[in-house]
Amino acid sequence: MRAEIISVGDELLKGQRVNTNAAFIARALAGIGIPVERIVTCSDLEHDMVSVFSESLDRVDVVLVTGGLGPTRDDRTTKATQELLKRGVELNVKAYANLAARMSQRGLEISASLRDQAMVIEGSHVVQNTKGTAAGMIICCGERFDNHYLVLMPGVPSEMQAMMELTVLPYFTELSDMVIRHTPVKTFGIGESTLAALIVDVEDSLPKGTTLSYLPHAAGVNLMISTVGKDKGGVDQDNRTVLDAIVQRAGRFIFATSEVTLEETIGSMLITAGKSLAVAESCTGGLVASRLTDVPGSSLYFLEGFVVYSNKAKHDILGVQKELIEKFGAVSEEVARAMATGCLEKSGADITVSTTGIAGPSGGSAEKPVGMLCLCVADRASGKVLSKTLFMQGDRERNKFRFSEAALCELLECLRTA
Amino acid sequence: MRAEIISVGDELLKGQRVNTNAAFIARALAGIGIPVERIVTCSDLEHDMVSVFSESLDRVDVVLVTGGLGPTRDDRTTKATQELLKRGVELNVKAYANLAARMSQRGLEISASLRDQAMVIEGSHVVQNTKGTAAGMIICCGERFDNHYLVLMPGVPSEMQAMMELTVLPYFTELSDMVIRHTPVKTFGIGESTLAALIVDVEDSLPKGTTLSYLPHAAGVNLMISTVGKDKGGVDQDNRTVLDAIVQRAGRFIFATSEVTLEETIGSMLITAGKSLAVAESCTGGLVASRLTDVPGSSLYFLEGFVVYSNKAKHDILGVQKELIEKFGAVSEEVARAMATGCLEKSGADITVSTTGIAGPSGGSAEKPVGMLCLCVADRASGKVLSKTLFMQGDRERNKFRFSEAALCELLECLRTA
Repeated sequence: MRAEIISVGDELLKGQRVNTNAAFIARALAGIGIPVERIVTCSDLEHDMVSVFSESLDRVDVVLVTGGLGPTRDDRTTKATQELLKRGVELNVKAYANLAARMSQRGLEISASLRDQAMVIEGSHVVQNTKGTAAGMIICCGERFDNHYLVLMPGVPSEMQAMMELTVLPYFTELSDMVIRHTPVKTFGIGESTLAALIVDVEDSLPKGTTLSYLPHAAGVNLMISTVGKDKGGVDQDNRTVLDAIVQRAGRFIFATSEVTLEETIGSMLITAGKSLAVAESCTGGLVASRLTDVPGSSLYFLEGFVVYSNKAKHDILGVQKELIEKFGAVSEEVARAMATGCLEKSGADITVSTTGIAGPSGGSAEKPVGMLCLCVADRASGKVLSKTLFMQGDRERNKFRFSEAALCELLECLRTA
Repeated sequence: MRAEIISVGDELLKGQRVNTNAAFIARALAGIGIPVERIVTCSDLEHDMVSVFSESLDRVDVVLVTGGLGPTRDDRTTKATQELLKRGVELNVKAYANLAARMSQRGLEISASLRDQAMVIEGSHVVQNTKGTAAGMIICCGERFDNHYLVLMPGVPSEMQAMMELTVLPYFTELSDMVIRHTPVKTFGIGESTLAALIVDVEDSLPKGTTLSYLPHAAGVNLMISTVGKDKGGVDQDNRTVLDAIVQRAGRFIFATSEVTLEETIGSMLITAGKSLAVAESCTGGLVASRLTDVPGSSLYFLEGFVVYSNKAKHDILGVQKELIEKFGAVSEEVARAMATGCLEKSGADITVSTTGIAGPSGGSAEKPVGMLCLCVADRASGKVLSKTLFMQGDRERNKFRFSEAALCELLECLRTA
């Protein structure tokens, strides 16, 4: 079973939006052993869609389309499909009920254009939308297209993602006969080439059917071990062998071998240790607190955060001495330490982390360049106060993210050794 | 002159990398009046490339390809082009000199596979690589393809971007005779269908050559007015007429008609008004502060932020009375007001914004469901303390973002009417 992805939308052709949907769908299909052979972005003009859909349906078994199911005039995917397959539309009652419930919650009337979002191609398997109003469809396209499948989904990422997970993936998993196993290896505090050097011999002797991908992200790199085959036992074993070999060589840089984030890992460790957390941020401007509180249930351990952007705030709120700031500068390990210990005292938390640095683009000097970060972790039980200075290179956004990542890595390291 | 973009690479088809190159190229081409009609991602297999290149060259005047020019075995773009056009390759001396200089800098020898990066299709206009080693090419494809152009560039974003800016855009600007103008319309506090209803008559009477796109994002919708034509004066005027008509009908929901963010707009207004800002967050967990400090120079007006996640923190740090929390609950307009005024007092800022709500997935009740947000803006000069309750629908991540967007919208509204 082979697939193609079609992304509909002028905003993609104009470069106003980056196509993240296609990558999500491709990854999801890889997860059930269906390779993607082409990704096509086309305009939202009907005749354009008709030819693109038709070409793809001629080539592969499954064609997944996103975009063009909304309520506005440039949403013409259903119309194009009608024309291509010469089929009518019908109202789907369940989709309409969902639409009506969402509209009434917002106190809105259901206009004709809104109602169109519950109209589906005749004979299609309807994909309900748990995150929005437009219904999706899985359509078996008949003899003209060798009974190949056309899947229509909205372009809003959260809606499409929920549809993929709840309906589309289970539907095609049943139809596919390959077994595939992916194991993510989440690392922290190590770069791509250093990691590659550590595991070069593992990479040189991968079992047949197994691939190892490097997935660099804004602040480091993750690995994905993928094994594909027809026999589940063999696939699982090959995948496991490679994982064990990597863990043996790079274990100290690995924080998870499943799809969890650094924030979630820290959360689990805090809960296990029965410890509470507070943060004191300058250059990260609230990003560390925001990432930590992205985790559901983080109120169990996250008490409070201070964004002490101005020097006055560092002094007034956390008791950082003015003389310290004058002598060493706001961006210094001394101030980072005073922030972390001040936060420990102020919040009553068991562990705190602080950041002070220069995100840029301005504010740097020869001695303290843009990209410089001082951070500190303070642990009440052990009395440890660990500070460190790092230098990064990037624009403001990238620096802020890397600063926050460094703070989380340091927190994790402290929890590991506590 | 019309274009298509082809992105070569298995990592894109597996979803291991998001295709940001295509968006960059599309935006760059739009800037010189060349519309992109399709974007295709294909594998790095030769026969696949040959058919994809050939199909695109049959359809449009310019086909821009990224990827597959590197030194490894899966880099086969030049080979595929040779096969397609039945042409040989030749060494480009300037590209080879660049390659040799970069290699010697790193103390590396030039292997045969490295040297291949300076081999170009016979008769092509060579695009020098100022950021790496692989040479690019602009190839006029002869009569078989109506003298359409094929442009080959590496897949590394920084290398491709430099090639576009230094060579490819100037080359095609000379050949193109169309003018294009895009005007973004950034809105806040309004959904897609409500906005569409407000401006339905504008959409019904768009001048020829002008299109209007809806760009929904996590918390609202932006518009893009695009006009294309041969006469710059006419293009500008048509674009302006549509913009004026939209501003007339929906002006109160528009915060910018250029590429600025809500955070940046708030920053400019604070600087203009000479006012300082502090924030008090519960459910947004630092995200409001983080977004506000994403703006370069935000230290000019952003003093500090408090992430008062626990009830104790709300009381200890901002002086929210325990009785208030007991009587109305932590998620209430009363507590939001006490947080905003407490923050005003504590920080000495001129204006503050507070959030308290239920991001989910748990913690909701019938009376106070997941997605409920209470927020408040307090303004020192006018003495105004404006609170409001909103209900949103989404998962934790989406709710958090929408909560932060609502807080920023309220802040903007307050600054507008101050």
